[in-house]
Amino acid sequence: MNEKNIMDYETVALDDERDALVIIDQTLLPGRTELISLHTAQEIWDAIYLLKVRGAPAIGVAAAFGIYLLAKQTDTQEYEVFYEAFRKQKEYLNSARPTAVNLSWALNRMEQVCVRSRELPVEQIKEKLRAEAVHMKEEDIQVCKAIGEHGLTLVKPGDGILTHCNAGQLATCKYGTATAPIYLGQERGYRFSVFADETRPLLQGARLTAYELQASGVDVTLICDNMSATVMRNGWINAVFVGCDRVAANGDTANKIGTSVVAAVAKRYHVPVYICAPTSTIDMDTPAGADITIEQRPAHEVTDMWYEKPTAPEGVKVFNPAFDVTDHDLIAGIVTEYGIAREPYTESLREIFRIKESKQAALKTRA
Amino acid sequence: MNEKNIMDYETVALDDERDALVIIDQTLLPGRTELISLHTAQEIWDAIYLLKVRGAPAIGVAAAFGIYLLAKQTDTQEYEVFYEAFRKQKEYLNSARPTAVNLSWALNRMEQVCVRSRELPVEQIKEKLRAEAVHMKEEDIQVCKAIGEHGLTLVKPGDGILTHCNAGQLATCKYGTATAPIYLGQERGYRFSVFADETRPLLQGARLTAYELQASGVDVTLICDNMSATVMRNGWINAVFVGCDRVAANGDTANKIGTSVVAAVAKRYHVPVYICAPTSTIDMDTPAGADITIEQRPAHEVTDMWYEKPTAPEGVKVFNPAFDVTDHDLIAGIVTEYGIAREPYTESLREIFRIKESKQAALKTRA
Repeated sequence: MNEKNIMDYETVALDDERDALVIIDQTLLPGRTELISLHTAQEIWDAIYLLKVRGAPAIGVAAAFGIYLLAKQTDTQEYEVFYEAFRKQKEYLNSARPTAVNLSWALNRMEQVCVRSRELPVEQIKEKLRAEAVHMKEEDIQVCKAIGEHGLTLVKPGDGILTHCNAGQLATCKYGTATAPIYLGQERGYRFSVFADETRPLLQGARLTAYELQASGVDVTLICDNMSATVMRNGWINAVFVGCDRVAANGDTANKIGTSVVAAVAKRYHVPVYICAPTSTIDMDTPAGADITIEQRPAHEVTDMWYEKPTAPEGVKVFNPAFDVTDHDLIAGIVTEYGIAREPYTESLREIFRIKESKQAALKTRA
Repeated sequence: MNEKNIMDYETVALDDERDALVIIDQTLLPGRTELISLHTAQEIWDAIYLLKVRGAPAIGVAAAFGIYLLAKQTDTQEYEVFYEAFRKQKEYLNSARPTAVNLSWALNRMEQVCVRSRELPVEQIKEKLRAEAVHMKEEDIQVCKAIGEHGLTLVKPGDGILTHCNAGQLATCKYGTATAPIYLGQERGYRFSVFADETRPLLQGARLTAYELQASGVDVTLICDNMSATVMRNGWINAVFVGCDRVAANGDTANKIGTSVVAAVAKRYHVPVYICAPTSTIDMDTPAGADITIEQRPAHEVTDMWYEKPTAPEGVKVFNPAFDVTDHDLIAGIVTEYGIAREPYTESLREIFRIKESKQAALKTRA
């Protein structure tokens, strides 16, 4: 399949004919582009846990399609039996990864469909679940595009942009979050020069970001995570754009491990750091970064994974947190689909949600 | 050979019987401990360029042994012919790596032996070259131990220490520089808990530092370079100790890529950063960091090396500087064998050299 461009594939798709959740297996990139079809709860859980599908927005949509497919398999006409099975599946899928809020956000949204439709026949509830999941995917694309438009106002043609991990198309359904300004800029001839942190230990920057940007014709340079200070010191970086897994109400942001390192370095070199955050990743119920659970992952990801042979002594202790928290004072702006929040975030994020509610209310009124 | 402990081997040794420079091939660690014997200029150059022997002090001693062995092979009784050959070999070896000052420092010191002994028969000059190289190795061990003693005054039992790259025994002849306080503390029951950055792309932290500290019974935890902010934020780190490849007269320090990232992060979390620097790595002729040449290395070290298969898209642009410069204002102290220099470094480093000269003068007077 490698002749086709990676950008021609959908990160997450629903195959109604085969009742399957179809994803690009991102653990095989960039060497091999392979679509895999997931049917069982275990397969879907594994795909999320093993990062075959990853990126907060993509995980959300995958979970929505996934829970719909599992619900569809529940063979009952009784709502209570159906709902009980739904709850169990939901709880199981939700346990795959603790840090990104989108996973539980998407599953909760799907559950609300069940609850709202409890008076309907189970078959109709299943259809409504499908519609909601499809809608969430469309929404994700629109949200990313809106983030791109807002983000683009923060940079100018020819700018150097640094990004960490993959908050690209492969982390969403299209455009990405952190890459959305880059892709929109690319369409409009901005000629950014982008630096992609390789992002140890899972190398999402090297394997995914560098790959998808290169495939899209963007001028991208791969660096190791420990080179951010050098490129900033050299004056090559005008802005940092990263995604996020959960933004707390005070603006503290959990994102891929190393983001707070980039942010501390950017502070030193007076480079603004922008978090690209769909409102689905902003968790107003989490007061601050200290309240976010950080997923710890196994040692072998650091010592063995990808390697020909182990690169560390046998039995060495390893600390492998998957995320870190960037304090809000290191963040120049949080770019959402409804605009850009700035310090003080406690107020500006609330304002973002007010705009969201009023726009949604206006849409409902029109509909 | 893996039954013996890595710490039982000498990083750099002279084998007089076989006229060989014997080193541990560090590119094979931690999987295999293999001693290799080098005879030709090309072999020695390659070993330095390919990092089979690495670490500023070890490179210096290896170059000293190397140039002695090459000089020994020069088959002439005429000084001018001998010296001309020496100069050529020196220039060649010196071209292997540009950033560490020890390489040229050691080779210059060996050249001075030639120049000083120009009236002697060539055979005697060769003996004097051997003696100087052997002396440099002994000196290196004493210097590292003295750095360890000074460094140990900066920490207390139970402290958490972060180190980057390998400035350990494998980078020197014994004790290491950044690890010297750790090893001395270990001997004295300090029970440090050490965090070793893996240090991409060549993984010296994972392959070498974690390895030698573990082999010595030190409590060591391996982390990726992008986790330094997390361990500091968690309050686990009381001090950062790193080595260096060249210290400028104003205290700006070139060391392994990523050191300035650690330093910027440490600033954020109020953790002091100490540079462990034999005076041989302090270059008073280099006014500031901007005057230090930074070695650029090939892309494949980032995209292919160590890996089972490439981890980045084919043909992607890569920026791979081997070192970075940490500004002096991020450095809490420069630990030398003659004491600890502090801001303002322009004065304190000059004072270190005054102490050195007076101690050396006193030694000469006694002798």
